Amino acid sequence: MNEIKGGVIAPKGYKATGGAVGIKQGIKDMAILVSDVPATAVGAFTTNVVKATSVLRNMDIMKQKQNIKGIVINSGNANACTGVEGEKANQQMAETLAECLNVPSEQILTASTGVIGATFPIEKVKNGIHMLFPNIGDTLEHGHMAAESIMTTDTYSKEVAVELKIGGKNVTIGGMAKGSGMIHPNMATMLSFITSDVNIKRELLDDILQESIQTTYNMVSVDGDTSTNDTIVVLANGMAGNTEITEKNADYEAFKKALHFINTKLAKDLVRDGEGATKFIEVNVTGAKTIQDAKMIAKSVITSNLVKTAMYGEDANWGRVLCAMGYSGIKFDTTKVDIIYHSAKGSIDLMIQGSPIVFDEEKATEILHEKEIIVEIKIQEGTEKATAWGCDLSHEYVSINGDYRS
Amino acid sequence: MNEIKGGVIAPKGYKATGGAVGIKQGIKDMAILVSDVPATAVGAFTTNVVKATSVLRNMDIMKQKQNIKGIVINSGNANACTGVEGEKANQQMAETLAECLNVPSEQILTASTGVIGATFPIEKVKNGIHMLFPNIGDTLEHGHMAAESIMTTDTYSKEVAVELKIGGKNVTIGGMAKGSGMIHPNMATMLSFITSDVNIKRELLDDILQESIQTTYNMVSVDGDTSTNDTIVVLANGMAGNTEITEKNADYEAFKKALHFINTKLAKDLVRDGEGATKFIEVNVTGAKTIQDAKMIAKSVITSNLVKTAMYGEDANWGRVLCAMGYSGIKFDTTKVDIIYHSAKGSIDLMIQGSPIVFDEEKATEILHEKEIIVEIKIQEGTEKATAWGCDLSHEYVSINGDYRS
Repeated sequence: MNEIKGGVIAPKGYKATGGAVGIKQGIKDMAILVSDVPATAVGAFTTNVVKATSVLRNMDIMKQKQNIKGIVINSGNANACTGVEGEKANQQMAETLAECLNVPSEQILTASTGVIGATFPIEKVKNGIHMLFPNIGDTLEHGHMAAESIMTTDTYSKEVAVELKIGGKNVTIGGMAKGSGMIHPNMATMLSFITSDVNIKRELLDDILQESIQTTYNMVSVDGDTSTNDTIVVLANGMAGNTEITEKNADYEAFKKALHFINTKLAKDLVRDGEGATKFIEVNVTGAKTIQDAKMIAKSVITSNLVKTAMYGEDANWGRVLCAMGYSGIKFDTTKVDIIYHSAKGSIDLMIQGSPIVFDEEKATEILHEKEIIVEIKIQEGTEKATAWGCDLSHEYVSINGDYRS
Repeated sequence: MNEIKGGVIAPKGYKATGGAVGIKQGIKDMAILVSDVPATAVGAFTTNVVKATSVLRNMDIMKQKQNIKGIVINSGNANACTGVEGEKANQQMAETLAECLNVPSEQILTASTGVIGATFPIEKVKNGIHMLFPNIGDTLEHGHMAAESIMTTDTYSKEVAVELKIGGKNVTIGGMAKGSGMIHPNMATMLSFITSDVNIKRELLDDILQESIQTTYNMVSVDGDTSTNDTIVVLANGMAGNTEITEKNADYEAFKKALHFINTKLAKDLVRDGEGATKFIEVNVTGAKTIQDAKMIAKSVITSNLVKTAMYGEDANWGRVLCAMGYSGIKFDTTKVDIIYHSAKGSIDLMIQGSPIVFDEEKATEILHEKEIIVEIKIQEGTEKATAWGCDLSHEYVSINGDYRS
């Protein structure tokens, strides 16, 4: 498997574009993604009881096992909590792209991100689709335009692509995603679109995705809020020409590994660019009784506002880490806990076997001054482990979210 | 029942003092509270798996049903995660006050608040007790000194007292508490000390406290973090001279109501003075299927960083409220939701029966510019209700917590 340039347009048979259609006044706010042939599609969606109309429609289409020709995505308006009018508008959004492609609207997925509850500007969206559709293409630039157009408060676009050999054929996977607030375990506001030219049975693709999200998108947190619009979709159009993967063999494992790499990269990028984030934080928990225990502890630490502000302040306040472990709901023996911080500048033991270690504050400050910090937590309850990713909580986060809607 | 001046010294037979003993360099950091006669004592403590040594010791003493002569409290160091040395130091802290009072150390409770994991300055604490003990007294000023001395990042001290008639006798209840970060449902960093001269059976006092905390201290949130040191203690020394309350009669109900008033007042004060808080927010949920459902929804909204930053920004972004309701884990019909904001400047409907209401932004801004905001949420799943209290999330919160330890 090699990482290559590009995003969603990297695999064979995909075209994309993006641009400004007036939802956000001069800022790129719409992307279109098209597959030359109807693609097998699987997805995962927000666990929030309140689901955007696009999410409900996409879930329904997935249930019908429709193959997918295109996806239209807008930023600037979430089309969530917009009632029957919003539902109609969402259907029209799909129909407009369907008309351009001359396919049934069931072959079109939609996704929206932005403010909740505001009237959806369907006329701008319809005009936008007509305006942008003629521009679709498969160059790096086309993929990049799409990735940029799904951003909200993201500061950079997230793209990734890999290629691998399956049955002697080149198979490619590409992806684009957006954050960057409301990112929290259980599919928080993130949109992630993955394309591949692999030929694979729908059920197997779904298995891979559902397993992969457990340790990728579901293990990142920006602010603990779970959005109404989270959507991850994987398309597989079979144009690589490999023999269809129909069982869990070596080809399956190779593809699974590659897709997981894509998801991991995108998930980590989401929190690296979390709203106002100045630091990327990885929490590794080992020695837990169960994977679930390890996850609960890791998530509790990565979500703690007090841990996050301490990281922002570059303060080795490991007591807050232990405290957050303690309210995770998981039982552990506090006399057997190790807490170690790592960065490119080295490592520092803060607690070993439940005893605080007298540490060199200067060294700690040097380590915490880095942009990427790893919090290593060892307990001695078992052999399971988990990793969560997050970011610090900064003044900028408050500024962004105190004045986001207006 | 009348609210009267004073705090813990208001009931008969209590003395207190407070002052600076050098833990926090010139800032008041120790309080002592003494009952003239051993008092019946009940308590509630943090649910965090990681418990400060004082919490573990107090829980043990409560289990033994010891009567209590005194409590010594320090701020500036939590004596949590400090191992065997910390445990010894905590015991010495109790013994020092016990010696001053010439009672067994089992009649002394301790409480600490401050940094987790730092070596406990036991010599300063012992010297401090000897220094402050001679100053104890029962004037308003003595109570006030104690209340001020348990503060950490609190901006003002929290005191309250009421008196009521029980069996023809004047019974008084007083209290003091401190916040102000790490305040979250399930007894987060809060210390609350309640005194009364009532004569009541221990089991009944305990029943009252355990019921009362469910709708007071457990329904407030500053930042979602649950501390290692949360402690609430109620002392009842019987000096009012009322016939002992031994059953759930009218006297019991009257006292229960008064103690609940005290707890409600202190709990609300804790979040009103949350770290960096500029606004006090009350979330009322009605129409839930169960009380637990109502509580979960209310807590989810009050804990949402996105709701809190929107409040800070005075932005009527009700979509974030609905979103937080949606990820509370409770099922409800989104087409039957009402969301209404209230303040001293009036009320504004934002969502009625699941439909967004076009509202006057100017009016909304005027309402949200107030210091106390009520978020009213109606669902139509049943008849149960709950109230949660919290505060906004400000730049100042980040400043305080990015640089708290140092």
